[in-house]
Amino acid sequence: MAVLITGVAGFIGSNLAKALLDQGYKVFGIDNFCLGNPRNLSIFKNQGNFKFIETEMSNVNAYKDAVRRFHEYESIEEIWHLAANSEIMAGIYDSHKDLNNTFMTTFTTLEVMRSFNIKKLLFASSSAIYGDLGNRKLSEDSGPLLPISNYGAMKLAAEAIISAATEIYLEQSFIFRFPNVIGIPATHGVILDFVRKLKITPNNLDVLGNGRQQKSYLHVEDLIDAMLFIRKKSIEKVAVFNIGSGDDGVAVRFIAEETVREFSPDATIKYGEGMRGWIGDVPRFTFCVDKLNRLGWMAKNDSKNAVLKAIKEIIAKEGT
Amino acid sequence: MAVLITGVAGFIGSNLAKALLDQGYKVFGIDNFCLGNPRNLSIFKNQGNFKFIETEMSNVNAYKDAVRRFHEYESIEEIWHLAANSEIMAGIYDSHKDLNNTFMTTFTTLEVMRSFNIKKLLFASSSAIYGDLGNRKLSEDSGPLLPISNYGAMKLAAEAIISAATEIYLEQSFIFRFPNVIGIPATHGVILDFVRKLKITPNNLDVLGNGRQQKSYLHVEDLIDAMLFIRKKSIEKVAVFNIGSGDDGVAVRFIAEETVREFSPDATIKYGEGMRGWIGDVPRFTFCVDKLNRLGWMAKNDSKNAVLKAIKEIIAKEGT
Repeated sequence: MAVLITGVAGFIGSNLAKALLDQGYKVFGIDNFCLGNPRNLSIFKNQGNFKFIETEMSNVNAYKDAVRRFHEYESIEEIWHLAANSEIMAGIYDSHKDLNNTFMTTFTTLEVMRSFNIKKLLFASSSAIYGDLGNRKLSEDSGPLLPISNYGAMKLAAEAIISAATEIYLEQSFIFRFPNVIGIPATHGVILDFVRKLKITPNNLDVLGNGRQQKSYLHVEDLIDAMLFIRKKSIEKVAVFNIGSGDDGVAVRFIAEETVREFSPDATIKYGEGMRGWIGDVPRFTFCVDKLNRLGWMAKNDSKNAVLKAIKEIIAKEGT
Repeated sequence: MAVLITGVAGFIGSNLAKALLDQGYKVFGIDNFCLGNPRNLSIFKNQGNFKFIETEMSNVNAYKDAVRRFHEYESIEEIWHLAANSEIMAGIYDSHKDLNNTFMTTFTTLEVMRSFNIKKLLFASSSAIYGDLGNRKLSEDSGPLLPISNYGAMKLAAEAIISAATEIYLEQSFIFRFPNVIGIPATHGVILDFVRKLKITPNNLDVLGNGRQQKSYLHVEDLIDAMLFIRKKSIEKVAVFNIGSGDDGVAVRFIAEETVREFSPDATIKYGEGMRGWIGDVPRFTFCVDKLNRLGWMAKNDSKNAVLKAIKEIIAKEGT
């Protein structure tokens, strides 16, 4: 069976491609290398079961052309749609980024699926679709859904059109609402920021906000494992799942201290003010994963272990 | 104070323009006359307080140009964004209709607001954003939001980007989730369908589905009254309100029987099968308006009265 991964050269995409190739799937991948990096494909790009075409997905004709070329090898049975703008701040200043890279890539993916009769879609959504619901637990049925960033808004918008398409012509769709995912090859995120800052000023680490923002983190290995598990087990027509470790998370302070300890033990940490690091950042939330646990999946790493593991990996990759 | 109404030549838009003009506002209107009709503007188009420019809103430059011309008279303080594809079925077959006319018109409206520093947005959303939640009461905080038509999906998508824009640069936004709104000058809907069918075949009325689909209906006069009330009373930054009569609604059977009684008493009514009239149609739902009632507003007409009133109005307008 052949699967297509959009955004295959990104952080999650490259990890997923590796996992699916290891399980014996034929994997086709597309990416525009806007945020994804060709180096992320290096460990498997020469495998016979992997094919890659550089594609601008917002151009539906280019996208269809790529799919047509893949179909000369084998028919695509499902699409994992991971391509998106993952830089939240960029989308605050220019809403076209999330429009084109998150929403329109989903719209064209659905057009491609309708025209090539591909029936199963797996989509990387985000906890950002919940916006800021205060102290409420965020479950799959929480509302109202009022995202506070264009990133979250376009993820929710994408969910909405996937849901309608599943009613109209898809057989099944999976909407995975990601937590903060960490590991390598990260393209952004708090640990990478800290390591990069410390490379420039080894004696000093400035933290946005007061460091009390507490979030749950999941290691990318657990994320991939959870998605493959849900895809195998859930029979819902539109299967919406929060994915996470289910714990209360760790504070930014913990991440700052552990990164400093591991990488630059003499650095002084300086905190800013307020709970929000930036516009669009939700200061604290509890991401409920009871539905996923009931399906039978639990994370191997809690937030604390995921952070410690990712700090080591990111330093090994970026630190020198 | 000047307000801009998008989709001013439509069913709701023209009723709203009249109400705001009656209250002494300067009203600017745009429409592309795709679904809206120039005749709907006839009763107020010669008032000095009303200005109209035919505009293709999905073209942001044309949209900005129209706003620039309005601003020569007076600054726009708020935008009522009603322009949308209202033909659900058309959007099932061609998702570009809802993309361009519902979602992209919202995206460009937000771009225009950001660039002209217009701070308040009032948006016509829909109960269709809830999808099919079975027998659950639909409140503003219900979820998951999995629309089953592109119409509902693009309304939800529009809500999402409005919410993000309100966090980033708007002062306040209102998201009005409309029920089935009836009255004149209707452009679509079950009563209009029945009247038009009976004009062609006065002895026979074919009804899609078994006629047991039960829905709540609101008369357009009540809808306008509710929106103006919410705009005056709610101080929420993103004010999301279901608008409706709050009753359990009436069955399609009732509407068919009353339309026949009023317009073509000898006609035989023939029902189809199943609960859904068409793809994307939610067979039965209870639209909870407790939040609106707590704010202090109640509909003057319940579903039954709204239907009886609208049948008379539509027959008077279309029936001969």
